[in-house]
Amino acid sequence: MKNLGAMEILNGVKSGELSPEDALLKLRLQPYEDLGYARVDHHRELRQGIAEVIYGEGKTAEQITGIASAMLSKNQKTILITRMSSALAEAVGKNHVLKYHELARVGIIGDMPEPNGIGTVVVATGGTTDLPVAEEAALTAEALGNEVVRLYDVGVAGLHRLLSKLDVIMKARVIVAVAGMEGALPSVIGGLVDCPVIAVPASIGYGASFGGLSALLTMLNSCASGVCVVNIDNGFGGGYLASMINHKRGAE
Amino acid sequence: MKNLGAMEILNGVKSGELSPEDALLKLRLQPYEDLGYARVDHHRELRQGIAEVIYGEGKTAEQITGIASAMLSKNQKTILITRMSSALAEAVGKNHVLKYHELARVGIIGDMPEPNGIGTVVVATGGTTDLPVAEEAALTAEALGNEVVRLYDVGVAGLHRLLSKLDVIMKARVIVAVAGMEGALPSVIGGLVDCPVIAVPASIGYGASFGGLSALLTMLNSCASGVCVVNIDNGFGGGYLASMINHKRGAE
Amino acid sequence: MKNLGAMEILNGVKSGELSPEDALLKLRLQPYEDLGYARVDHHRELRQGIAEVIYGEGKTAEQITGIASAMLSKNQKTILITRMSSALAEAVGKNHVLKYHELARVGIIGDMPEPNGIGTVVVATGGTTDLPVAEEAALTAEALGNEVVRLYDVGVAGLHRLLSKLDVIMKARVIVAVAGMEGALPSVIGGLVDCPVIAVPASIGYGASFGGLSALLTMLNSCASGVCVVNIDNGFGGGYLASMINHKRGAE
Amino acid sequence: MKNLGAMEILNGVKSGELSPEDALLKLRLQPYEDLGYARVDHHRELRQGIAEVIYGEGKTAEQITGIASAMLSKNQKTILITRMSSALAEAVGKNHVLKYHELARVGIIGDMPEPNGIGTVVVATGGTTDLPVAEEAALTAEALGNEVVRLYDVGVAGLHRLLSKLDVIMKARVIVAVAGMEGALPSVIGGLVDCPVIAVPASIGYGASFGGLSALLTMLNSCASGVCVVNIDNGFGGGYLASMINHKRGAE
Amino acid sequence: MKNLGAMEILNGVKSGELSPEDALLKLRLQPYEDLGYARVDHHRELRQGIAEVIYGEGKTAEQITGIASAMLSKNQKTILITRMSSALAEAVGKNHVLKYHELARVGIIGDMPEPNGIGTVVVATGGTTDLPVAEEAALTAEALGNEVVRLYDVGVAGLHRLLSKLDVIMKARVIVAVAGMEGALPSVIGGLVDCPVIAVPASIGYGASFGGLSALLTMLNSCASGVCVVNIDNGFGGGYLASMINHKRGAE
Amino acid sequence: MKNLGAMEILNGVKSGELSPEDALLKLRLQPYEDLGYARVDHHRELRQGIAEVIYGEGKTAEQITGIASAMLSKNQKTILITRMSSALAEAVGKNHVLKYHELARVGIIGDMPEPNGIGTVVVATGGTTDLPVAEEAALTAEALGNEVVRLYDVGVAGLHRLLSKLDVIMKARVIVAVAGMEGALPSVIGGLVDCPVIAVPASIGYGASFGGLSALLTMLNSCASGVCVVNIDNGFGGGYLASMINHKRGAE
Amino acid sequence: MKNLGAMEILNGVKSGELSPEDALLKLRLQPYEDLGYARVDHHRELRQGIAEVIYGEGKTAEQITGIASAMLSKNQKTILITRMSSALAEAVGKNHVLKYHELARVGIIGDMPEPNGIGTVVVATGGTTDLPVAEEAALTAEALGNEVVRLYDVGVAGLHRLLSKLDVIMKARVIVAVAGMEGALPSVIGGLVDCPVIAVPASIGYGASFGGLSALLTMLNSCASGVCVVNIDNGFGGGYLASMINHKRGAE
Amino acid sequence: MKNLGAMEILNGVKSGELSPEDALLKLRLQPYEDLGYARVDHHRELRQGIAEVIYGEGKTAEQITGIASAMLSKNQKTILITRMSSALAEAVGKNHVLKYHELARVGIIGDMPEPNGIGTVVVATGGTTDLPVAEEAALTAEALGNEVVRLYDVGVAGLHRLLSKLDVIMKARVIVAVAGMEGALPSVIGGLVDCPVIAVPASIGYGASFGGLSALLTMLNSCASGVCVVNIDNGFGGGYLASMINHKRGAE
Repeated sequence: MKNLGAMEILNGVKSGELSPEDALLKLRLQPYEDLGYARVDHHRELRQGIAEVIYGEGKTAEQITGIASAMLSKNQKTILITRMSSALAEAVGKNHVLKYHELARVGIIGDMPEPNGIGTVVVATGGTTDLPVAEEAALTAEALGNEVVRLYDVGVAGLHRLLSKLDVIMKARVIVAVAGMEGALPSVIGGLVDCPVIAVPASIGYGASFGGLSALLTMLNSCASGVCVVNIDNGFGGGYLASMINHKRGAE
Repeated sequence: MKNLGAMEILNGVKSGELSPEDALLKLRLQPYEDLGYARVDHHRELRQGIAEVIYGEGKTAEQITGIASAMLSKNQKTILITRMSSALAEAVGKNHVLKYHELARVGIIGDMPEPNGIGTVVVATGGTTDLPVAEEAALTAEALGNEVVRLYDVGVAGLHRLLSKLDVIMKARVIVAVAGMEGALPSVIGGLVDCPVIAVPASIGYGASFGGLSALLTMLNSCASGVCVVNIDNGFGGGYLASMINHKRGAE
Repeated sequence: MKNLGAMEILNGVKSGELSPEDALLKLRLQPYEDLGYARVDHHRELRQGIAEVIYGEGKTAEQITGIASAMLSKNQKTILITRMSSALAEAVGKNHVLKYHELARVGIIGDMPEPNGIGTVVVATGGTTDLPVAEEAALTAEALGNEVVRLYDVGVAGLHRLLSKLDVIMKARVIVAVAGMEGALPSVIGGLVDCPVIAVPASIGYGASFGGLSALLTMLNSCASGVCVVNIDNGFGGGYLASMINHKRGAE
Repeated sequence: MKNLGAMEILNGVKSGELSPEDALLKLRLQPYEDLGYARVDHHRELRQGIAEVIYGEGKTAEQITGIASAMLSKNQKTILITRMSSALAEAVGKNHVLKYHELARVGIIGDMPEPNGIGTVVVATGGTTDLPVAEEAALTAEALGNEVVRLYDVGVAGLHRLLSKLDVIMKARVIVAVAGMEGALPSVIGGLVDCPVIAVPASIGYGASFGGLSALLTMLNSCASGVCVVNIDNGFGGGYLASMINHKRGAE
Repeated sequence: MKNLGAMEILNGVKSGELSPEDALLKLRLQPYEDLGYARVDHHRELRQGIAEVIYGEGKTAEQITGIASAMLSKNQKTILITRMSSALAEAVGKNHVLKYHELARVGIIGDMPEPNGIGTVVVATGGTTDLPVAEEAALTAEALGNEVVRLYDVGVAGLHRLLSKLDVIMKARVIVAVAGMEGALPSVIGGLVDCPVIAVPASIGYGASFGGLSALLTMLNSCASGVCVVNIDNGFGGGYLASMINHKRGAE
Repeated sequence: MKNLGAMEILNGVKSGELSPEDALLKLRLQPYEDLGYARVDHHRELRQGIAEVIYGEGKTAEQITGIASAMLSKNQKTILITRMSSALAEAVGKNHVLKYHELARVGIIGDMPEPNGIGTVVVATGGTTDLPVAEEAALTAEALGNEVVRLYDVGVAGLHRLLSKLDVIMKARVIVAVAGMEGALPSVIGGLVDCPVIAVPASIGYGASFGGLSALLTMLNSCASGVCVVNIDNGFGGGYLASMINHKRGAE
Repeated sequence: MKNLGAMEILNGVKSGELSPEDALLKLRLQPYEDLGYARVDHHRELRQGIAEVIYGEGKTAEQITGIASAMLSKNQKTILITRMSSALAEAVGKNHVLKYHELARVGIIGDMPEPNGIGTVVVATGGTTDLPVAEEAALTAEALGNEVVRLYDVGVAGLHRLLSKLDVIMKARVIVAVAGMEGALPSVIGGLVDCPVIAVPASIGYGASFGGLSALLTMLNSCASGVCVVNIDNGFGGGYLASMINHKRGAE
Repeated sequence: MKNLGAMEILNGVKSGELSPEDALLKLRLQPYEDLGYARVDHHRELRQGIAEVIYGEGKTAEQITGIASAMLSKNQKTILITRMSSALAEAVGKNHVLKYHELARVGIIGDMPEPNGIGTVVVATGGTTDLPVAEEAALTAEALGNEVVRLYDVGVAGLHRLLSKLDVIMKARVIVAVAGMEGALPSVIGGLVDCPVIAVPASIGYGASFGGLSALLTMLNSCASGVCVVNIDNGFGGGYLASMINHKRGAE
């Protein structure tokens, strides 16, 4: 009954009980939300019919189970749970039909939606050690209704592998490029294509990789135009932004 | 006559002078470009009819004048010169009709193109000290054919200023949010809208702002989905990526 | 019998046994404390009737039990034990009636005192992962005699949640704002209120959060006046300073 | 006529032109500010009758002169201009009676207000090189209506100087402790007093002082309770917060 | 049958089915690799008859066993597996005759090749704690066909130990100098010899060694000419580059 | 029989078998040590009759037992083993009478020597968490023949505790000051005394203590003359240098 | 008449005017210094007959001239002024006979004292670019009464230069080793001698020398016992501490 | 007459004046160099007939002129002066015929030597801003007797430029790859070739390039084998090491 307060005030104006001046004063003192201001959940429209997202880290199986039940009761078709341990997946799986992707630490309740984006989202990665981050990005994009093409193991130290897939990356609508160590993949890809490249640094490597910092700096310094960066290991963020760009939003 | 070499080889095959096996061997030894491989200038199409960009830093007035003349001779309508000092602008201005934006250190030869993007690009900034970076972003986006709405001085420490412009930011197709010091603006905006937010850290401030590093870290850690980051002070990069997202590219 | 030494010297002067010159010489060689100089325990008055604090980290159950017993024997009503593991709590609980707050890792022996501060202390936090630090701050403030209002999960990426509580934060006497990741909460709150805001960075997050460093820098760079910062994860320090500001001290 | 829009809507309800439901819908679309929400200028009350503040950095003499004129026309008694170069001061001084404090780079138009705080604000500093920051803090606090006691050159490497002023610091309501290099002053003072200590790192020193970073870290790690920290060289921030604490605000 | 596509096109030209122009167009669209471009495996020649390398980190025993089997079936004589845990070694050892070097975490299948380099590779190290990295370098160099001389425990804090081996280091063709802590060994050696010195920082030490960062910086700042650096703990990289320098490659 | 080689050459000159010219040539090719150059073991004299030191980290019980046996067979009276785990101590204790100090992780075989230094070495520390490092320093100094006075828990946040021990610190010949967190103790002590102060940062603390880095920077920036710094947690280094200063060496 | 207050109180006790109890109370309220506590100027004795030191940075010629005049009037023989620009030296030189050492930026009024230390202080440096720091150290030590031997240009990349001076460094009582870039000199020297080595990092170099940080870290990680470190470029601190160690102080 | 001392001692043995025992004692006290030990100037042979190098930074024109004169008098054909300002070049040019390369800040006296290395040294660079560092490397290599091929402007963001030069880089004996910003060039080249790649980070760029640190980290983390790194902007070091590798040294 959120807007009741505001409605009562307005009804009071209508009935003459309240002068407009007093009503305005009262309205000012109402809590913000009560005015139904704008966007109680600004992502609702985006996810409608697609996926809801639960950030699994630090949540208990009971909490996740409960949230998922509530979502399902509202006819949610797809629920994406990120940063989910296998133990958590097992526990949640007792109450919900959950498909668990161990590498990406992602659990999915329900079916993946049909892709409804403008084009394809390419998720590229330099080596096999980047796969967990890349898969988090890819699964996120799929759960949000995108056709995803995976280009794994196309690192810049073996350029022929990347170049043999030129056709794939040149047809992408947006590219998520995951890389650890030297993190040069987004720059090289950014120099080859005309679409946005979202760079995701991975915390793999050793020594002077400094937990992904080195890759992060490389990506921020990219000489290729059209490259932007998200947080280290933030595969979800990369996939989410890619989906945003691949869907028509904001305009018309 | 770039592909002549390859054509001659193929003609040799046609005429029987070369066996296909020998031709393949020869083709392998040809320089990459000679094969007409892909994208001699991968940005050409993007800029067609819109703007060419010259990075002014470290170039002499002679060099810029020469490059611009060559571009104009190919019917280029708009030329954007970034990181251009006022002295440089004055010197180049002797040979070309150049409009110089001192704050943004941007020079423009020719007219701004008509906007042809999907929606509007909003360039937001927290304070007046961020203006040089924000203007570089805004002018870049305009020169690349975007309608730009400037929302300046809407920093998070005075939230009412930002909230009074909710309608503007909620109608944007993509937002470039420039901020120095604590750099929280992109996070707050990202929580209010459904479109991509490109965060540009500014190197303003003093003390623990560490030349923009503090703002950069804030932005990378944004809790709002849909936020990505470019290099410190990289207004051009922010405007360029915004234009990419605001134009249909890559697909169909 | 702390001042006996000094008193004996002075009695020696009185009795003529010591010349004033010799007495002065002797006094100079007395240990500092013996002169009753100033504040043997400068926090005594503050904590009188309220809580004594034991820093639990690195102490054994025996040590804590012993210190607590000594405090209780001096009629101490409330004892706050911070950074206490659950194992430690269990062990100490065998000898003292201890209420253990697992999330905050805080144990309390005795009853919480009645609030006797000037106004309310608001403890705000951006997300659920910040709760351990926030609870340490809240419990500390309560144990030191403050009325505490908890505003949890009001992060800047969902501004409506914070704005719906405007009335609460605007009535605060002092606010402790805990935030990890981008750490923008104190800035936003600081821009909304007229009271001191104590920012506490939390070491949560991943990647470029660098164990709270990112949030720390954000807070130090806050554009909002009236914001100050304590160490990462230092909920106790935040709650303690808030209590100081919320009580009349130093003057009259 | 800011609230006209909202008033017109409410008048429409009163007159029956608008149903309460439609009115609510319309109100939601109104810009935030139009609803008169809360605090157009949340600092107004604080500064009423005391000082307005202009951040001088990056402003032209014309801008400052204009802002000051507008303030004076509203009967503002004291205007504090921070981060003001001597050249700027000279230029502004042509139109306004301005007292310039070169060391602190602070200009003041009008008279200092009578102190109306609860107690005294002590501004302490370790050495003479910290004076610019300390003076910015002291002048800010004075301009905001505080009685300020300056304790300069009481660095921890010469403890007797600080100890000889024990009476002064123990009577303070709040202390601003400025220090560069090792930055230990706030810790030592914090251990001696019961009032809040606001630590301000100064960017003085050389080598491993790293522009104030070393002092900043020291202060954040202070073992003394009741110490908080503001940005490096942020004398204004320290003085402002001190004034907040020294005035009754937020409560009753 | 990789080049079949290209060959078919060329045969089409030969037979007149395809015009050279159409063929060129088709060739451009072929994947890069299909053209047999350059170096499918650019390291093949280098390793021919010597060792193949498998990076063990993150691979399962099954994966390694499979890769090794494939290599052996192609008559590979020596297989070097780096970053291999003892558990992994035991598991792989069930299917292959594997010699495991626990200190270096290196496993070797097959026999070490006969040295065929120009001269000797000296691997020097300051203390016993650097041995794991040094052994990785030494075994790598041996597996790649180099005569290796180990000079362990010749740290700069006991210069006489290094000087007593002057004859050995002065006869080296290339030196790999491993050092943690202060990392001064490469500088001192670089000042004594005329051959390239590859410095490998080790992540040993404590406190301000910062996981090898201190040693890394020391080495980068070396005043001795002819010193270069690889990543922290990258013994493999050091040994590999040493082998490259010690073999004739690239020219004639 | 170290110098035999050189002696044989010289005997050859004496007997006429070798010309002086040939002898010089041969001498040049002798290993450095063989010439008896300088200091085969430059620490021998220092430790004569006092303690030999074994760095325990990374050594096995067998290695330590063996080294100790060899030392004892040369009539070594005291053997100090640093960085020794309790497990290691137990194992070594089966073959040698070993006294193990768990807090300091130091084992001692044999008796502590009589102090023979010039004066006393004071080891001071701010809190109880610094004790492991402080005890390593104290035991090292004692094992090297120094009278050590321990001043624990005299941190700068409770100045009266330090000042009550003024007489002790002012009589010291050299002071080792251990401190974590803000690390201000050496500065304060350095300002009170005329003797060298060796500052040892401790890696205790949390948040912005950054593993001792904060304390390290504080100490390097000390405004007090006569303060120098060793590595984080390097209690041994502090005790060793203190002993050097407290003994007459080099000159006389 | 500093102690008058305290004496008057004691005389009051003697005369019976004051009870010992009242006297104790009054004494407690006396300023610290009034009690003649300890060390009004703890460095006085040290400098007696030797040099007084003025830190020139940030002082005006008038200030320095005045301080120097006051010192001379108290029969001070030698005055050392550090961090003094040549302009400052010229200005001060108009009133005092001042010898200016431009390289070290040190000015000296009066004559150097006769050396009265235990042995020699060796100041060693790796290259000519370290000279300013080394000379500051050397002149400081000389001004404080030490015989100084300069060993310049003995960097570790040319070991023979250092080794040819083995006799000099092995006779030193204490060594100040200045080095920039890789900063390895103190480690190498520390391994050769039995006396304390004070390492002074120099901010010379470029790139990864990071203003002396690299050299600083190297020195802190020194494997040689007996090495301690002072701040970057702190030649004065190195010379001062060397003098302390080279003079009998603290004991007997 | 360097070895005279040693010879006299040996002659004394021969003549019976000295016993071998006394001689050994005396020999031990001789300065190191006197024994003719090894390498008075270990670089002599390398540079024989090629170039001598003078590091210009911090040297006066007089010093450089003098050193050069001495070198020329010993028939030195080529003298390379690095880090030389144009002012310095002009001054030195008054006494010597000097060719000055302004971009590289390199001066050369005499003629470039004929190349006598094994193969070619390729110096590659990503953009025009890297040219100063690249030219320092190229001129150094040429002055040391290498045939140098310059590949400028082949940055990874425009891969076709690099790929069109595949033949050049694949024929190199050693490659110096200079890059700023993201610094990915060496990785990409290292993946294409079989020869050593020396990576030189350039301090160009802005924002998160942090003076070349970003490029440095990228290069250290290179996934391509055979890549090593020298200091930021150390073009000389890169060219010098390349020359070492390109010449036969150390062996036979």
